[in-house]
Amino acid sequence: MKSYREELSFHTDTRRAYINITPQVEQAVARSGISEGLCLVNAMHITASVYINDDEQGLLRDYDDWLEGLAPHEPTTRYRHNRTGEDNADAHLKRQVMGREVVVAITNGRLDFGPWEQIFYGEFDGRRGKRILVKIIGE
Amino acid sequence: MKSYREELSFHTDTRRAYINITPQVEQAVARSGISEGLCLVNAMHITASVYINDDEQGLLRDYDDWLEGLAPHEPTTRYRHNRTGEDNADAHLKRQVMGREVVVAITNGRLDFGPWEQIFYGEFDGRRGKRILVKIIGE
Amino acid sequence: MKSYREELSFHTDTRRAYINITPQVEQAVARSGISEGLCLVNAMHITASVYINDDEQGLLRDYDDWLEGLAPHEPTTRYRHNRTGEDNADAHLKRQVMGREVVVAITNGRLDFGPWEQIFYGEFDGRRGKRILVKIIGE
Repeated sequence: MKSYREELSFHTDTRRAYINITPQVEQAVARSGISEGLCLVNAMHITASVYINDDEQGLLRDYDDWLEGLAPHEPTTRYRHNRTGEDNADAHLKRQVMGREVVVAITNGRLDFGPWEQIFYGEFDGRRGKRILVKIIGE
Repeated sequence: MKSYREELSFHTDTRRAYINITPQVEQAVARSGISEGLCLVNAMHITASVYINDDEQGLLRDYDDWLEGLAPHEPTTRYRHNRTGEDNADAHLKRQVMGREVVVAITNGRLDFGPWEQIFYGEFDGRRGKRILVKIIGE
Repeated sequence: MKSYREELSFHTDTRRAYINITPQVEQAVARSGISEGLCLVNAMHITASVYINDDEQGLLRDYDDWLEGLAPHEPTTRYRHNRTGEDNADAHLKRQVMGREVVVAITNGRLDFGPWEQIFYGEFDGRRGKRILVKIIGE
């Protein structure tokens, strides 16, 4: 069995952002030399998500509006977590809807995707450096 | 290490549907010949989910009503994604609540389940052929 | 390839509870003797979640309020599932928001975590014994 580990780094200028990280994950798979296995991709921060869906700008804005409706940022005083001096409680909630991680099959040395699957990093409390973990095991 | 891959195919007559796919996944595990490992089951389409919960008809209708409340199909004009000519933005949102994939342990050649766990395919934009990926690695 | 399996057992006195299980999972990783691989941690019950987020008491209460808003327990008659004699339909819904499982990388014999990641068991229909599965594969 082989294993491979890589960190991806990002910085977003906005509080919330949706970034297609498929090319970086594909490069990690190529560097791993693993042709059959599983690829875990997870946010290393707890106010961010890694998820798989469509790379369509309208949909990304729909996600953003929808998540803001389910877990509004304002008023920040509505959340007990923010009494610690944070203002990001909403980001911890939004991340649970979108998920922490994806596990993708590796087949013939490639991410084994359906027709429209793209891996996204969803940031809900950005404006600083953030990291994503890619861990691949297989042969 | 061994690996095994299989696609399951489905067609639903309705826009939304909830299908127990546990028997098909069990057959894939048996065909794999793998007795200890991990089994990934994921929707290959981005308007559908694979999730684990109860096979109880009332609950399936509760899920359907609840998801429709969280991300209503109508009016389709409320979603920017639908300006592309689609009418399925709500399906992309519902899928995020229910999840893309499950990872199930394989122990002694079987899906290592708790007492009521059943694997479901949740379709939110059906009425055409859809596929599910089963990837198993182990020994 | 090596594999390791362990069950964790819990009993909660309250209907809903959020328990940090990171120490127990770390012990399982140590006992496994696996230094590079993947660790699956999943609820074996379908009204409970395993998820990763912050161990901050205010946030845990925010999650509880938020989930109760998204899928209220009362009135129990609003859910078809409860016509079976159960009163836990809301727990099946809450669990889908928080997720069934996490997959964590194992690197150098340890859970490969970002700075604040902690594994939690979220119970939404407690007051009886419940189990969590830890399955680790790797080398």
